[in-house]
Amino acid sequence: MAVELISVGTELLLGQITDTNATYMSQRLAQIGQNVHFRTTVGDNQERIVACIHRAMDRADIVVLCGGLGPTSDDLTREAMAEACGRGMHRDPGSEEAIQAIFSARGIPMVEMNLKQADVPDGGEAIPNCCGTAPGVFLEHEGTLLFAVPGVPREMRAMVDDAVVPALQERGLAGTGTIVNRVLRVIGLGESTCARRVEDLLLRQQNPTLAPLAGKGEVSLRITAKAASESEARKMIAGLEDEIRGRLGDHVFGADDESLERVVVEMLTGRDATLATAESCTGGLIGSRITDVSGSSRCYAGGVVSYSNETKMALLGVDRLILEQHGAVSHEVAEAMAIGVRRHLGTQYGVSATGIAGPGGGTDDKPVGLVYIGIAHENGASVEKHRFTNDRLDIKFRTSQAALDLIRRALIESGPH
Amino acid sequence: MAVELISVGTELLLGQITDTNATYMSQRLAQIGQNVHFRTTVGDNQERIVACIHRAMDRADIVVLCGGLGPTSDDLTREAMAEACGRGMHRDPGSEEAIQAIFSARGIPMVEMNLKQADVPDGGEAIPNCCGTAPGVFLEHEGTLLFAVPGVPREMRAMVDDAVVPALQERGLAGTGTIVNRVLRVIGLGESTCARRVEDLLLRQQNPTLAPLAGKGEVSLRITAKAASESEARKMIAGLEDEIRGRLGDHVFGADDESLERVVVEMLTGRDATLATAESCTGGLIGSRITDVSGSSRCYAGGVVSYSNETKMALLGVDRLILEQHGAVSHEVAEAMAIGVRRHLGTQYGVSATGIAGPGGGTDDKPVGLVYIGIAHENGASVEKHRFTNDRLDIKFRTSQAALDLIRRALIESGPH
Repeated sequence: MAVELISVGTELLLGQITDTNATYMSQRLAQIGQNVHFRTTVGDNQERIVACIHRAMDRADIVVLCGGLGPTSDDLTREAMAEACGRGMHRDPGSEEAIQAIFSARGIPMVEMNLKQADVPDGGEAIPNCCGTAPGVFLEHEGTLLFAVPGVPREMRAMVDDAVVPALQERGLAGTGTIVNRVLRVIGLGESTCARRVEDLLLRQQNPTLAPLAGKGEVSLRITAKAASESEARKMIAGLEDEIRGRLGDHVFGADDESLERVVVEMLTGRDATLATAESCTGGLIGSRITDVSGSSRCYAGGVVSYSNETKMALLGVDRLILEQHGAVSHEVAEAMAIGVRRHLGTQYGVSATGIAGPGGGTDDKPVGLVYIGIAHENGASVEKHRFTNDRLDIKFRTSQAALDLIRRALIESGPH
Repeated sequence: MAVELISVGTELLLGQITDTNATYMSQRLAQIGQNVHFRTTVGDNQERIVACIHRAMDRADIVVLCGGLGPTSDDLTREAMAEACGRGMHRDPGSEEAIQAIFSARGIPMVEMNLKQADVPDGGEAIPNCCGTAPGVFLEHEGTLLFAVPGVPREMRAMVDDAVVPALQERGLAGTGTIVNRVLRVIGLGESTCARRVEDLLLRQQNPTLAPLAGKGEVSLRITAKAASESEARKMIAGLEDEIRGRLGDHVFGADDESLERVVVEMLTGRDATLATAESCTGGLIGSRITDVSGSSRCYAGGVVSYSNETKMALLGVDRLILEQHGAVSHEVAEAMAIGVRRHLGTQYGVSATGIAGPGGGTDDKPVGLVYIGIAHENGASVEKHRFTNDRLDIKFRTSQAALDLIRRALIESGPH
């Protein structure tokens, strides 16, 4: 079975939006073992949409169109499907009712134009939309299954999950195999170093395959296995994962959606340990990332954003002399910040970051990207010096990443909980 | 002239990555007045890539391929171009040298495989790659211009900007028109309210067009004008923009890449005013967003992340009684936090946020999404109550958005600088 996806919308061709819908649909189809051979993007032009549908029906067994189901004159997907399959259109009473119900619930007068969304090519079926006015379309034509789903991401996702995938499964068009991905997340090694350490695995593996990818302040190693069942694919992945973890050790901090902040919060919570942050160049980013994790209030007391010397003195107790002698971006100040915030907030760990995020403010001695990260705990304090490149936001993010990793490594060193 | 883009890579069809390259190329081509009619995505399969190139040459005058130029056996774009145009391949000496130079500069031994990247279809030219080993390809075949650029986003962008766009301009294939976008950014009005206030403009306009888009904590109104020259397009946009600003007033906080945090920093700096933040549920996000803006140290003193009651008392001087009587998420505590941080840091403005970000911690009285935002200044303090929905990260972001907007409105009220 071959699948083709058609994304409809002039805004895509103008680059006004990025086609994340195509990504989602590709993922979901891969998960049920369907192979997407082609994706096409076409504008709001009926003739061209029709041409795309014709081409897709020639080379695919399943065609999924996305977008162009709205109420305006630019929305032409239904019309193009009907034309491409040589069919008329009829109004679906169920969809008509559903659309009217949505407008009356919202207390907005409905315009006649909105009912156009209830039209379906003859012989086709409307697919209910759980969270919007535009129903989808299902149509079988000369052995090809055609689906149309809305372009609003939330509506598209719900319809793909609740209607398109189940329809394929019911017809026995899924489950002939599955593709499973697992991403190992690595910190403290560059992409090339990381790739060298697993080079033989990169070359050797056909299934599962292994692909390194440089991320923001981390490297991902993506393992992809194709197998008859998910459990079989997971077993194949586990073998390769063990081998990689053996080689990279603690540099592997998590997998899949285990972000560094989540790992840190879980480690702190598991050890009943508490943390406070003292942030200069990151401006609150470390705290914000920690508090992105639900349940972080169990281990995170908060901290200080010390964006001026006065704040460093007033709220962290950093000595004026140290600031004057060494400057705000220094080993000594990073240490004093970490110790100060730990003491003021009475936590077991204090972490600090001070640096020059740029683009201005750099000197020969202290260039843009120079960052000191400190950590304080019951046995004392230590400071790491980093030199990051790239732009302000990148330097901020990499600093937060290094600070979170410093906490993680300190917790590993402190022994298992 | 019609343009077609072909994205090459199985990882795209599996949904492992999102095709942001297609977005960038579409934007750049729209800027020089080229119309992209179709985009196709195809996997690492030579036969299918060749079929895509054939199809594209049938219906387009300019074809840009992206990806598949690397050194591995999966990288097939060069080979497919040669096959589609019935040509042989030769090794380009300049590219060969450039690749060898990169490896010797990095001190890494070069594998023979890497020189495959120096191959070019006969009659074609290599396009130098400023920031990677994979040269691009330019080939003219039976009246169609074909380009191939690397899939690494940084290399692709540089090559599109430095080679593809100039090549089209030199050939007089650009400048017959241009498409210019301008996005007005609106806060404090929902998408539908915003759309209703400009409804007649949405319907009336053919060129420039107006499209509303719900964003994260804001609404965008995108104006798109097509004209012979950029200045003409800008003039058309200006007229519509004036009309919209007249109707929406201060709800329009900025345009294009003017983020709310940038607008706030510029307003503060322009008034020589200073700000401090006291954040509970946002955990540092407000400070982090403010410090994303270069130059924010001129107006932002920092603040406190008060993620526990102890921190609120110790660093902000919030009275234990107030916390006990009203709870941490209350009008009174938000007010005390804003006043406290302003006093402790000696700034003109203090802003605070306290709320329940969820998913846990909500009660009937104080549900998830309940947020109080306070502001303190020389004339006193005030607090706004909000009730946000959706998930934790969304509630955090919307809270930061509301806090920044509260500062913005306070600055507008304080009069022009």
